[in-house]
Amino acid sequence: MYEDRIRCAALRGKITSAAEAAKLVRNGMRVGASGFTRAGDTKAVPIELARRAREEQGPLRITLMTGASLGHDVDRMLTEAGVLERRLPFQVDATLRKAINRGEVMFVDQHLSETVEMLRANLLGKLDLAIIEAAAITETGGIVPTTSVGNSASFAILAEKVIVELNLAQPLALEGLHDVWIPGRRPHRDPLPIVRPQDRVGTPIIDIPAEKIAAIVITNEADSPSTVLPADEETARIAGHLIEFLQHEVKHGRMSAQLPPLQAGIGTIANAVLSGFVDSPFEALTMYSEVLQDSTFDLIDAGKMVFASGASMTLSAPRQAQVLAELDRYRDKLVLRPQEVSNHPEVIRRLGLIALNTALECDIYGNVNSTHVSGTHMMNGIGGSGDFARNASCAIFATKAIAKDGRISSIVPMVPHVDHNEHDVDVIVTEQGLADLRGLAPRERARLIIERCAHPLYRDLLRDYYSDAQKIGGQTPHNLAKAYEMHLRFNETGSMLPGVAEAGTGGLVANG
Amino acid sequence: MYEDRIRCAALRGKITSAAEAAKLVRNGMRVGASGFTRAGDTKAVPIELARRAREEQGPLRITLMTGASLGHDVDRMLTEAGVLERRLPFQVDATLRKAINRGEVMFVDQHLSETVEMLRANLLGKLDLAIIEAAAITETGGIVPTTSVGNSASFAILAEKVIVELNLAQPLALEGLHDVWIPGRRPHRDPLPIVRPQDRVGTPIIDIPAEKIAAIVITNEADSPSTVLPADEETARIAGHLIEFLQHEVKHGRMSAQLPPLQAGIGTIANAVLSGFVDSPFEALTMYSEVLQDSTFDLIDAGKMVFASGASMTLSAPRQAQVLAELDRYRDKLVLRPQEVSNHPEVIRRLGLIALNTALECDIYGNVNSTHVSGTHMMNGIGGSGDFARNASCAIFATKAIAKDGRISSIVPMVPHVDHNEHDVDVIVTEQGLADLRGLAPRERARLIIERCAHPLYRDLLRDYYSDAQKIGGQTPHNLAKAYEMHLRFNETGSMLPGVAEAGTGGLVANG
Repeated sequence: MYEDRIRCAALRGKITSAAEAAKLVRNGMRVGASGFTRAGDTKAVPIELARRAREEQGPLRITLMTGASLGHDVDRMLTEAGVLERRLPFQVDATLRKAINRGEVMFVDQHLSETVEMLRANLLGKLDLAIIEAAAITETGGIVPTTSVGNSASFAILAEKVIVELNLAQPLALEGLHDVWIPGRRPHRDPLPIVRPQDRVGTPIIDIPAEKIAAIVITNEADSPSTVLPADEETARIAGHLIEFLQHEVKHGRMSAQLPPLQAGIGTIANAVLSGFVDSPFEALTMYSEVLQDSTFDLIDAGKMVFASGASMTLSAPRQAQVLAELDRYRDKLVLRPQEVSNHPEVIRRLGLIALNTALECDIYGNVNSTHVSGTHMMNGIGGSGDFARNASCAIFATKAIAKDGRISSIVPMVPHVDHNEHDVDVIVTEQGLADLRGLAPRERARLIIERCAHPLYRDLLRDYYSDAQKIGGQTPHNLAKAYEMHLRFNETGSMLPGVAEAGTGGLVANG
Repeated sequence: MYEDRIRCAALRGKITSAAEAAKLVRNGMRVGASGFTRAGDTKAVPIELARRAREEQGPLRITLMTGASLGHDVDRMLTEAGVLERRLPFQVDATLRKAINRGEVMFVDQHLSETVEMLRANLLGKLDLAIIEAAAITETGGIVPTTSVGNSASFAILAEKVIVELNLAQPLALEGLHDVWIPGRRPHRDPLPIVRPQDRVGTPIIDIPAEKIAAIVITNEADSPSTVLPADEETARIAGHLIEFLQHEVKHGRMSAQLPPLQAGIGTIANAVLSGFVDSPFEALTMYSEVLQDSTFDLIDAGKMVFASGASMTLSAPRQAQVLAELDRYRDKLVLRPQEVSNHPEVIRRLGLIALNTALECDIYGNVNSTHVSGTHMMNGIGGSGDFARNASCAIFATKAIAKDGRISSIVPMVPHVDHNEHDVDVIVTEQGLADLRGLAPRERARLIIERCAHPLYRDLLRDYYSDAQKIGGQTPHNLAKAYEMHLRFNETGSMLPGVAEAGTGGLVANG
């Protein structure tokens, strides 16, 4: 059985149940699992692990590392079963998020390019086990990844043992789509030779010896579909402002007509904005990104995009079915890489990417909070946004100007958590307008952000704060006694706006 | 005259006075001047420009870009004469600082690797004029830089015209010390091929056509000496903690016995700490840094360091005289590069640097403020610390635990300005101890930073803050209503400690 999928005959005897394989996980272990923004995650062993933890006596707590977020409620089930002692580098699960915010799970929020770099340098301890989804195993034990590469390659290389989840629902046609490049050990490391998004510099498989594979579990289940919402009026206006800005850049010779390669973060806003490029004048676009969402395929289908490089494909259910059925149509326009490569500062700086990521909130000086609601409660994690924003030629952060029916302004006097600071943020765009911050001093930025990006509901509040802060002076005027007044008011009354009569509904902190 | 220094005969007719050359600067121009942390700055034309501005009618305001800070009170004189409309990317002058903090000079505080990248991409406007100090001009008009390369090469290449200050006090023996590499224009850019600190990949001169040189001014003046203070008991203890930590890393196989290449930021603390390595067990050290200070030569002379790559040499007066007199002794152990190369994320990540920079203050979660006193008033600028910290294999921030005789704690609940965030800060070290933050969640970091790094005077205050904040919860517990209590108390009473009787002496803000 499975001759086409398990080409190393000796390995066919390793086929076992998920429950048996899950027994390889023991208390205190460090486990690396495939999966990047729901794509190519393992769908059976972690769930059996959660079941075992609920049923067994004795502690069963592990450190779980992944590429990024998982599907199939795996993080919820592991959290409920108390299995997660430590989790990195990213997550999006509501149950896990609450446990993190209660301080029950130690969550290490990392730049996505750095996890395996740290692991390789022995800074995160020894990796005991890797659990990797595969489309096939080659004659020599090499793993053919599925819809993501993420951190899978380095996990498999660095772990003592590997469990493979061979997923029959992932088409064999995925083979050849991947390009696995692993950096040399420092101090003897060569340049990463990618000079165009379409360059292939590695191998199409994860090359490990067959002996390392301790168990093979057969699954047959699709990736969890992406949860992004469709474009709406605000995202269309954000896309409009951005396209106008980029046209202006091309007109003034600061960008080529083809535009530099694009990166777009995970989520509704970036996906919707990128979809808006279908109606732009730009041609022959390329992507050098981490997650490829529906919008990438919208652009390819529209003939607007000629190539997309990513670490994963995270698609809606219909797009997923269509793309996997028609992989040959996309084969020469796609590559999936390790996230260490897709997010590598070296390549991002060299290619001069346009990086589009989502802000939770921005302050009037251009500092961005991507992660912490009210400065305290983790949403998802910084993800790759820092890898890209620091090194891109143009780092854009998009957000709707207000949230919760206007009770929250996404433009605030001072963000209570800084993921991206003034030095790295080039452009802020909301449905209200776009602020080009490049080459400006903080006082110039403040005027622009308030007048162009803030919602009219909040402009006077922000103008008053800025005007008051100027009396204190400085390169970056602030009044520390009042800097978080809007946040504190929200926590007390349920709205950042003053004079809202209704009693507080608890605020975001209570929801965390 | 000057045949050995001006080898292009046609250019000898361009020799003129500083006053004449300064007339090439006109109101509204963008000017790029050599100089990086006082080394290799222009010593005559800017001073004549300041004189002219004071004497002439009519406005004379410019944008001045440099490598980093200047010597010879140039920034003071230009500020007093009202010449500076906009200044980037770094400065350390007290008079200019005050003008910046009053909002009179627009100061664009940039990662030092990014200024010429932005200039090249036409994001900072057209550069009208470059003023570059040289040790010599070659047969074809190429410029031999002096004690810094900084941004000089790209300024000379991108400017419409170039004024050369030929400084006879800079020895001709400097020739050959430099390695000028300029990246290709995106999107067609090759990898930066440096794989060891000692690799030479460019040319020893700044290659521009002779016709671009509009004037040559002869000077004969040494660089302003560095202003760093000698090591003291606290810096010796910081060095001790750091050496112990690095020995521990070597012992556990996480670093080679030779250590990865070192970077050390400008200033007393980093210089003193590095000098402390003379008494360490490490051998065959290398540096890949921006500024080479006295400590680099202490280590070379002690036989501890085999090679140092920098963008400038900023030395005390006796070290400067000695090194310039004995350049041949150091020739095969030194290279000076453009700051775009010395600070390039690509090389920093590839080499896996140990980066040592100074913090103004750190918070209990590991966020670092390098620039803004009280969150508002600019000290110097972020400099290269962000270039290095983000991409180093080990990003260390050092500070003394208290300042102003204990009235200020350098460890605070929440920094009011974030230059380096939790994702980029690996280690914090004070004379009290060292906190290794790698792989830790924020709650784990807080305990470590408070117990290891904070001064005993402030530990209870910080413990109380953290304990109180935990009631609010979250990944990063904070109480926004109290996060800046210590800063506000300092501004009111002159001390961050409660119960200090004496009336406020104004606080740092008033000094800004």
